[in-house]
Amino acid sequence: MSYDASMIKELKHRAARIRWLSLKTTAEAGSGHPTSCCSAAEILAALFFRVMRYDPKNPASHANDRLVMSKGHAAPALYAAWCEAGFLEEKELFTLRKMGSRIEGHPMPSLPFVDVATGSLGQGLSVGLGIAIQQKNVVKNGARTFVLMGDGEVAEGSVWEAFALADNLKTDNLIGIIDVNRLGQSRETMHGHDMRTYARKVEAFGWEAIVVEDGHDIEQVLKALEQAVHVTGKPVCVIARTLKGGGLSQIADKDNWHGKPIVAGQGLEQALEEVSKDLMKTPPAPAIAKPAEIKGTIVTGPLKANIEPAPYKKGEKAATRQAVGPALVNLGKADERIWAIDGDTQNSTYSQKFGEKYPERFVECFIAEQNMAGVAAGLAARGLIPFATTFGAFLARAFDQIRMAALSGLKVKFIGTHAGISIGEDGPSQMALEDLAAFATLPNGAVFYPSDAVSAYHCIVNLARHDGPGYVRLSRPNSEVLYDADETFPIGGLKVIRKSDSPALTVVSSGVIVHEILKALKNLPGAEKIQVVDLYSIKPFPKEELGKLVKASGGKVAVFEEHAPEGGVGAAVSLHLAGQISSFKHVAVTSVPRSGTPEELLESFGLSSDRIAETLKSLVK
Amino acid sequence: MSYDASMIKELKHRAARIRWLSLKTTAEAGSGHPTSCCSAAEILAALFFRVMRYDPKNPASHANDRLVMSKGHAAPALYAAWCEAGFLEEKELFTLRKMGSRIEGHPMPSLPFVDVATGSLGQGLSVGLGIAIQQKNVVKNGARTFVLMGDGEVAEGSVWEAFALADNLKTDNLIGIIDVNRLGQSRETMHGHDMRTYARKVEAFGWEAIVVEDGHDIEQVLKALEQAVHVTGKPVCVIARTLKGGGLSQIADKDNWHGKPIVAGQGLEQALEEVSKDLMKTPPAPAIAKPAEIKGTIVTGPLKANIEPAPYKKGEKAATRQAVGPALVNLGKADERIWAIDGDTQNSTYSQKFGEKYPERFVECFIAEQNMAGVAAGLAARGLIPFATTFGAFLARAFDQIRMAALSGLKVKFIGTHAGISIGEDGPSQMALEDLAAFATLPNGAVFYPSDAVSAYHCIVNLARHDGPGYVRLSRPNSEVLYDADETFPIGGLKVIRKSDSPALTVVSSGVIVHEILKALKNLPGAEKIQVVDLYSIKPFPKEELGKLVKASGGKVAVFEEHAPEGGVGAAVSLHLAGQISSFKHVAVTSVPRSGTPEELLESFGLSSDRIAETLKSLVK
Repeated sequence: MSYDASMIKELKHRAARIRWLSLKTTAEAGSGHPTSCCSAAEILAALFFRVMRYDPKNPASHANDRLVMSKGHAAPALYAAWCEAGFLEEKELFTLRKMGSRIEGHPMPSLPFVDVATGSLGQGLSVGLGIAIQQKNVVKNGARTFVLMGDGEVAEGSVWEAFALADNLKTDNLIGIIDVNRLGQSRETMHGHDMRTYARKVEAFGWEAIVVEDGHDIEQVLKALEQAVHVTGKPVCVIARTLKGGGLSQIADKDNWHGKPIVAGQGLEQALEEVSKDLMKTPPAPAIAKPAEIKGTIVTGPLKANIEPAPYKKGEKAATRQAVGPALVNLGKADERIWAIDGDTQNSTYSQKFGEKYPERFVECFIAEQNMAGVAAGLAARGLIPFATTFGAFLARAFDQIRMAALSGLKVKFIGTHAGISIGEDGPSQMALEDLAAFATLPNGAVFYPSDAVSAYHCIVNLARHDGPGYVRLSRPNSEVLYDADETFPIGGLKVIRKSDSPALTVVSSGVIVHEILKALKNLPGAEKIQVVDLYSIKPFPKEELGKLVKASGGKVAVFEEHAPEGGVGAAVSLHLAGQISSFKHVAVTSVPRSGTPEELLESFGLSSDRIAETLKSLVK
Repeated sequence: MSYDASMIKELKHRAARIRWLSLKTTAEAGSGHPTSCCSAAEILAALFFRVMRYDPKNPASHANDRLVMSKGHAAPALYAAWCEAGFLEEKELFTLRKMGSRIEGHPMPSLPFVDVATGSLGQGLSVGLGIAIQQKNVVKNGARTFVLMGDGEVAEGSVWEAFALADNLKTDNLIGIIDVNRLGQSRETMHGHDMRTYARKVEAFGWEAIVVEDGHDIEQVLKALEQAVHVTGKPVCVIARTLKGGGLSQIADKDNWHGKPIVAGQGLEQALEEVSKDLMKTPPAPAIAKPAEIKGTIVTGPLKANIEPAPYKKGEKAATRQAVGPALVNLGKADERIWAIDGDTQNSTYSQKFGEKYPERFVECFIAEQNMAGVAAGLAARGLIPFATTFGAFLARAFDQIRMAALSGLKVKFIGTHAGISIGEDGPSQMALEDLAAFATLPNGAVFYPSDAVSAYHCIVNLARHDGPGYVRLSRPNSEVLYDADETFPIGGLKVIRKSDSPALTVVSSGVIVHEILKALKNLPGAEKIQVVDLYSIKPFPKEELGKLVKASGGKVAVFEEHAPEGGVGAAVSLHLAGQISSFKHVAVTSVPRSGTPEELLESFGLSSDRIAETLKSLVK
């Protein structure tokens, strides 16, 4: 099959423009990755001006095919394509990497055509999978998601997690593209130009593989992409043999050209001249395929959360993790943007309850937490509100994906269960002792750590309402329900669970340790001088409210927690109240825990009611 | 080929013993994963009593074949095998999961046959690759490493990172085994019993795949493993079709038996009776193959570090990351246990310098940070001292592997470069703003954050000397060398870089911000009342030393840092000096940064010398 010559001439012009603009804007910026842009010029030209269906005036539209630029360092080529498509003005492209510009070094969602920040490699396919799932299940107009990957990033395991799940889900509106330009940052990639090995891997993971022998031959690229979009029943990956710096004869396929602009007087002029030979004097207006009409319902606006009261009675026993079931189910009933995804722990995290009620909004990601977080980011990028649940310990596996989702400002919600030493016999590998430290760093992130099932229920609802990413830390053991079902737990608040008229000490804790403290205070001499704070909202931190309480106790504070000493409850208290604390006692998990009963473990770290009582006695004597 | 009947009879006895002990010890413990043990009984019997070459009296020996139990929840089966081999006494096995016992819920290195803690799934193959590399390059006796994986964990991308690198390195003394028992924790795995798909994936990644149709037929298992150890030129993976709870007819292959002991009166008796039918009344003493003699030199004892002074002159310009080259090269010259591994950033991290000098001790892991950390753990588990280097931001990718290495007490050393907003134009995806928070949580971990090339050089040497895991945070920009080459930087220390006779304020900072502070103090009215601390050692924290200084300034402290407000320098200061601080000013990276020049970014977050000067003026006026 051969193509109309004028159309090919036009696509060569588009590719030349992408190269020209990538070269000029990076040269102007004095930094960037023009050679990584040039290898993808034909791929982007074919996608934007022949294959993708979208409205160039409304890049954010749900109706559009989406493109995830997983090789984020080639951002200038992406900007160039959107300039050619008529959305960006050429002059704005020349603000590349300049302070205040949305034309940043790597793509950021401040641009309406960028769904998720990229730049940490190997995350785009997971995000694309999440977007493709949203298109299939919510938009329902046949829209497709394209993910452009570099060859170097295919070494990241997260990519193979996404390949595996897309095969499992048969997500045939997801189209991967690997720009095999052979060269990584420091040397040749693992497979160089061995196209067959890439194809073999992709096929082994259940995908259709289409190899393009010359990724700079626009006809070959176009043919492959057109073939790809017609594959049904399975996802498909186009694997294109390209050259880093393709189209620049002086630089193409040469080492030591990663992340370097080609500067004036040192090759820029020749490079521009060379790519200009394909520029048309009077190019036609781009003919961009229109997207099909949206068939589904796109819910927007604030969360619909006419939530029922927590289904627990004060005094009964329940684990905080049990609240995941009713909280997610009730949220899901109120607002269909609520989704749940899990990593083969749904029977422990209770996300199963949501999956049973709303199977069409539940994704089982199996034991692959990075991809779970990436899929959640993709869903959130398209307006959904996903809750990703697993053991708190295993969210450490996805910390980079979580970080990137937060940089993207996405409403990705994480729930970590079985946190802390109170899980007991399974031992330290299953105990989250650093989860609070990690999640607390997320810009605009919320971190909640409830002490009973009622507050857990409300913290999960709070997390859904929070306009950003966040985390709820939940525990394994059953403990007493401390609050009435209709108690409120405002974001950034705290509960004084035990008051004192003449406080000499403020005790702060969260989660199951709150119960140990309450037990410790029974028949403790001097207990009436101790006020106890249940700090369920660690971020936002109730600085003013807790500050007043601490002041009332003369600045005397004690914190007990089942987390590493760094980055947990005590760290938050000391950081936010620094200057207001006169004495500080901190009991936390200071060494590697071991297997034992929850009681023995709490005892061994000074967190059992008895050990806490001793400590408190010494503080109020 | 058929086997001697008495030998098969004996191996069936060993498998029966493994089942019997797994059932009894988990029943006694009241928790555990007996069904996951039973699926691997024949595999372990064949490995321990026919295939593996090791000294059962000296499980830690470098001469031994090593076994990594990646499916750590099957620990009771591992303990049972070592009991049958004569190393553990049966009565100790019955301390399973009890406080104080080394027979923990998941394998821990307090046992000499456990190289690295497992229990966070999908990490064992990376660790095994590191061990196999040590065997090939240091032990040189033909020893092999076996890694027993569950099928569920093969969904983890880190497993495929390890498959890919082992293929790249042609590590043919690494033998993977996948126990395909079909059932995960919550449901059937992605591929169930589809053995061909597993084989196709493994082969696509360059490994030899050997499928065992019935993993409970000891002859089939033995045949496959014997075939596997004779494969040369590439790694090999045995994929065995098993049943979860295999050998227990009432339970085998049934749902909802994950992580549940079979208890007395509810099936235990029948299960024990069933497995007992293969028990021999008078079993022979196990015939265990002896390992070959060690041909290489195993260096032990304290680090040999007669290190040359730092190759920098006070006043000259250098980036802290540049110190990676000379520091690693000099360490490597002094002690051959020093290794370096990188993730395709060696030309930015300067680990390349080590690779050029000591190629036989350098591993390029390509863009796969999880596997890089796992390989480092494997090397460290066998007595080497590996430095894993990449951008600080991308170490977030490996946080779970780093966590597990720390729980294992391993001397794994991480260096993160390009930390903070001072990298400039590349934007937030490349900026580590949460690395200090994560690394600070590691038990017995060290965290160093030097301000110039001399202190960076010494901090890297300190990290090598530190008896545990740790991290050095390094910066991209060139800055002035502040210290003489022979200055010392003790672990847990600080430097008063600017003294005051009558301090009214203690300013604390680290890294490049120290330079902005020094600049800010030039012609600042009241500067003589300000003392400046270069806090190069964040963990261990110089609590006493800094406490004295803060006391001298009346408890007034200001901290400036290019990290998230949580978990960084300010968090460490406020946590360790809580109660000693009267006023606390903290300037950090409070929102998502963007592309811009380093200067503009520092300015925008109040971290430029001008903005710092304003802040200091308001504090000392």
